[in-house]
Amino acid sequence: MTETDEAYDEPLFFRVIQYAENADRDVVDMVSGNPDWEPPAALRDGLRDYAGADPPEFQYQASEGLGELREEIAARRNVDSSRLVATNGAGEANYLAMAAAMERGAGTEFLLTDPVYPYYPGKATMLGGSVTRVPVHEDGHVDVAGMRAAASEDTGAIVLNTPNNPTGAVYDIDAVAALADVAAEVDALLVVDEVYDHFDFTGRFESALTLDRDHVVVTSSFSKSMGITGFRVGYAVFPDDLVDAARTRHMLVNVTGSRPAQTAVAHALRETPPSYYESIRDTIRERIDALTAALDAIGADYTTPEGAFYVLARFADFPGTMANAERLIDEAGVAGMPGETFGDAYDDWIRFSLCTDRVDEAAARLTAYFEGS
Amino acid sequence: MTETDEAYDEPLFFRVIQYAENADRDVVDMVSGNPDWEPPAALRDGLRDYAGADPPEFQYQASEGLGELREEIAARRNVDSSRLVATNGAGEANYLAMAAAMERGAGTEFLLTDPVYPYYPGKATMLGGSVTRVPVHEDGHVDVAGMRAAASEDTGAIVLNTPNNPTGAVYDIDAVAALADVAAEVDALLVVDEVYDHFDFTGRFESALTLDRDHVVVTSSFSKSMGITGFRVGYAVFPDDLVDAARTRHMLVNVTGSRPAQTAVAHALRETPPSYYESIRDTIRERIDALTAALDAIGADYTTPEGAFYVLARFADFPGTMANAERLIDEAGVAGMPGETFGDAYDDWIRFSLCTDRVDEAAARLTAYFEGS
Repeated sequence: MTETDEAYDEPLFFRVIQYAENADRDVVDMVSGNPDWEPPAALRDGLRDYAGADPPEFQYQASEGLGELREEIAARRNVDSSRLVATNGAGEANYLAMAAAMERGAGTEFLLTDPVYPYYPGKATMLGGSVTRVPVHEDGHVDVAGMRAAASEDTGAIVLNTPNNPTGAVYDIDAVAALADVAAEVDALLVVDEVYDHFDFTGRFESALTLDRDHVVVTSSFSKSMGITGFRVGYAVFPDDLVDAARTRHMLVNVTGSRPAQTAVAHALRETPPSYYESIRDTIRERIDALTAALDAIGADYTTPEGAFYVLARFADFPGTMANAERLIDEAGVAGMPGETFGDAYDDWIRFSLCTDRVDEAAARLTAYFEGS
Repeated sequence: MTETDEAYDEPLFFRVIQYAENADRDVVDMVSGNPDWEPPAALRDGLRDYAGADPPEFQYQASEGLGELREEIAARRNVDSSRLVATNGAGEANYLAMAAAMERGAGTEFLLTDPVYPYYPGKATMLGGSVTRVPVHEDGHVDVAGMRAAASEDTGAIVLNTPNNPTGAVYDIDAVAALADVAAEVDALLVVDEVYDHFDFTGRFESALTLDRDHVVVTSSFSKSMGITGFRVGYAVFPDDLVDAARTRHMLVNVTGSRPAQTAVAHALRETPPSYYESIRDTIRERIDALTAALDAIGADYTTPEGAFYVLARFADFPGTMANAERLIDEAGVAGMPGETFGDAYDDWIRFSLCTDRVDEAAARLTAYFEGS
């Protein structure tokens, strides 16, 4: 458990991506979590239809989001739409949730996992909070006892991500419920980012919304499930007593989200069959198999993701430093994220994103590189 | 000059609009500043083309905005694109500018005009700043001497809007330059919101960017100029020493803006002829004439806007209270914004937005109502 109050530096994703782009050779990009697959057909249709709409439809929707979008989400998540703010992606949803924790005045410390998605500590620091990281179990699951021991009256929020980036763990709903209890005990919020909820390969994933607890904020977006990180359509579901303040902050920061994107997503939600999502999961499963087969051949350690679309790998004598990530780009032609970017717990590891149709090529390159070394 | 630290309540626009929508009679909406006119044809084309783009174009652009959009803006505003952050509308641009002022640690007071667009004091309070309002001159122009007298080492930023909502004043560039001097003297920022820059009826408007000063942040958007408040495409131009921190905050709050909207605006910027903007100005001029002719007939005081698209009117024994705005909705069938919403200086006035093709009808209704009273 470490306490940090680092400056909120730009996450390092972009530095690695830029290094790969400037490399002298062909590089398979396994850094970014940007889907490379086709969005739902209905999303394209919805956007095309909207392009011909009347001028009033080109103006602000309600600040909290397009009515039809919020109704579609509320029905799917089984919550009252009054608790729901449509946001500029999960990025803004998490910002609003963490700001809500600070505004409650019941603690300024954010309890995060180690490893952690780097935007969370960035947001915490920007909001004037402090960060405490609690290492996860070796299998990538959240350490409930460790979180409970770390929680105190100074804690403003515990922030989770399940299915998890980067470990691929799908947290047990019992673990999430136990952390909701911890949050209630120390008068903090539990923020659960479920942006990978459509990428559960275990059949065990349950949303924290099913707990129906006070003190719990759930965030998500359509960036991953529809393959549209650039559209910026997400949402946060707040407890009744926090939603007004969150709506006000949303209004004062952004006024509202982008209506063409919200309209297209609402249309896609109505018209997209379950088979769309299942076929994407099948694609990811195939990519997991291709990469992990190569890692077996190499004799590397790796995590088989229960969810999301990342594989963490540990190669002998090749820790997950920025220098080694750059070496892998230059010498193997494969770009991955150094584990040290996510904290200390996985700093021996490298994260490979499966958002590329060149996983076979990457697997062959890694095999040649590490077997030859 | 008054000092306030009110809670950052939801702006009252929505309350008036809702009252009008729930009225038992037909009401001409002159509350909202949402353009009712047709967007550029190229905007629709750009959005339609984008709907057929390849999956990589549906993913995040750079956090600071789509490259082609930033280049188009930078060329038009004659600034280096490195100073420019594309934002989720002018709303986010002003938030980033005001947050930059707070982050500098050189003062936490925001000097605003009275009357003022209510989002500015809302943002100031949300950011933990205080608000001081300096009444404008009777003609609606900023009181430079008053601002200078109010400025001190506690001042974090002076925030201006020109062409101005609600007064319609187009500030002289000399006045803006003098306030840039004041900002420099007290080590504050001058934030100039130029969102109505395409609605200048005087030919005198000059952007604060032409001053090329440190300490000056200029914000704008395409919401008004292209009639697309719902797209959320705006930008802020920062001094070199502040742009990195603003980009980081933008990334941590929103990740980036919505790409369908940014793509469509970039296309429209390239393909839209000046005649498009001129024809919209002609429409507004006609509406100004129609409304002010009625106000002449009634014998009401009013401001003839030099810019933007609002007319402030003062009727005898009918101050600009919320109660009177509601009375006007119920009894005359015309909805305007009560002047008290914008501060104390114009609390006798009612603001009528010209974003409706029913200005003639509103003029007739106001004439019948006030001549009959």
